Amino acid sequence: MTLQKNWHCKEAPIGIFDSGVGGLTVAREIARSLPNENLVYFGDTARVPYGSKSKDNIIRYSRQIIRFLETKKVKAIVIACNTASALALEVVCKEIDIPIIGVIVPGAKVAVETTRSKKIGVIGTEATIHSNVYTTIMQQTDKEIEVVDKACPLFVPLVEEGFAKHKVTQEIIDYYLSPMKASGIDTMILGCTHYPLLRSRIKEYLGEGITLVNPAYETALNLRELLLKQQLLNETKQEGATSYEFYVSDAAEKFKEFANSIFPYDASTTQEINIEEY
Amino acid sequence: MTLQKNWHCKEAPIGIFDSGVGGLTVAREIARSLPNENLVYFGDTARVPYGSKSKDNIIRYSRQIIRFLETKKVKAIVIACNTASALALEVVCKEIDIPIIGVIVPGAKVAVETTRSKKIGVIGTEATIHSNVYTTIMQQTDKEIEVVDKACPLFVPLVEEGFAKHKVTQEIIDYYLSPMKASGIDTMILGCTHYPLLRSRIKEYLGEGITLVNPAYETALNLRELLLKQQLLNETKQEGATSYEFYVSDAAEKFKEFANSIFPYDASTTQEINIEEY
Repeated sequence: MTLQKNWHCKEAPIGIFDSGVGGLTVAREIARSLPNENLVYFGDTARVPYGSKSKDNIIRYSRQIIRFLETKKVKAIVIACNTASALALEVVCKEIDIPIIGVIVPGAKVAVETTRSKKIGVIGTEATIHSNVYTTIMQQTDKEIEVVDKACPLFVPLVEEGFAKHKVTQEIIDYYLSPMKASGIDTMILGCTHYPLLRSRIKEYLGEGITLVNPAYETALNLRELLLKQQLLNETKQEGATSYEFYVSDAAEKFKEFANSIFPYDASTTQEINIEEY
Repeated sequence: MTLQKNWHCKEAPIGIFDSGVGGLTVAREIARSLPNENLVYFGDTARVPYGSKSKDNIIRYSRQIIRFLETKKVKAIVIACNTASALALEVVCKEIDIPIIGVIVPGAKVAVETTRSKKIGVIGTEATIHSNVYTTIMQQTDKEIEVVDKACPLFVPLVEEGFAKHKVTQEIIDYYLSPMKASGIDTMILGCTHYPLLRSRIKEYLGEGITLVNPAYETALNLRELLLKQQLLNETKQEGATSYEFYVSDAAEKFKEFANSIFPYDASTTQEINIEEY
């Protein structure tokens, strides 16, 4: 049994990390579901994007970030990045004694519970899709599940450059998703943290017959269960505001701008750190 | 006067570096203009893209890559990345005794020589445009030059994801460049190494009245002049093939695929190195 270290108290913050700004969609869901919790968010903006990088590097980056979050005395860690959840969680969870969860398992679990046709769509970055991790996890639960997956590498830059509502985004959605729309799936996982920001466009394109699963939302619910089970849930209202701290590895200004556009809390305190030192 | 070190011989290779694959358009022009030269190419695929990162980090990355290229005993270095040329060249050129050039000055010089209206367009990454470096250099030559610039951050992912010929690229060209088309420029600099791969689409959009400047081509000519002047030009045909070596900081497989599609020489020898060690 793992020894509880003295910083594992209910008031300690939850650490959340991502390759950049995308994980803020996960932080947003956690803040909504767990309004009493303090959060420390790290966005690896110096090394974004993870989606096109190798497994070895993603593991190295994740270890550095976990060491940084440990200095913030976090009581739990959420890997808010699908790529890092797919490639690094299995390795790093064995190396630390803080509870740690990723976004893949919660999303996969709900997709399997939701589907009637047993045919599930998954979209994500190249690395996530190539890792086959959603398929592996869903078929461990139900081996009859059939998966139709597609890497959609242009969705992230389109969202980050403010094209979410531009008509070219509709055409790129059509380009990537037309075979999926015709494939007979009834459930689709938005397997990249940026994709919830295209949710309404994708929903409109795929139609009412396909249920979209947002792993960010499911992860927040899973985190709540985990904290309850470990008696780490902060159930008492804090005096003053809940604390949200934001750290990045580069270009704090640009992060703040994007963060303030999607996160309903002020990210003005964003600090830049040198992650290679951890 | 700088001492000539013993590896500064004509047979030594030329070092070329970029944030990723884009600089291969520069390597291609150098290989065409200087067919006897051996080349060592480094693509920083672990930390790509540079365009959205800070000056301090771009300088740190450039220093590490120069240290790596020095281990390959290069006789000259070409910074084939507009962002690194804009943000790091001025600093790093004072720190080494190997001749080093970037892609900005050659492109800026030819644009000033070409324009009649003295109104020049510049497109590039956010970091390049934000640095204002093309404008500064062109106005140093002719203070009457007026510059119309525009960051086009979606062009790189569109090229890298194989959308160069897709119709959405035409719409994004229109989105970014319609004010520029109407602005009265007669010359436009393709201020990012990926953009020559969209050259014909941009040319078609802007029409015959606007001359496109490709800094990759001008850089190859400048390099030739520099090597001649320093008596470092390799004018004798080598026995066997000229040597082209490719190194990357991550995902060598993906690099090879893209490299082979735009570079007319086999990049199958691409090796991955840990650039953080330099």
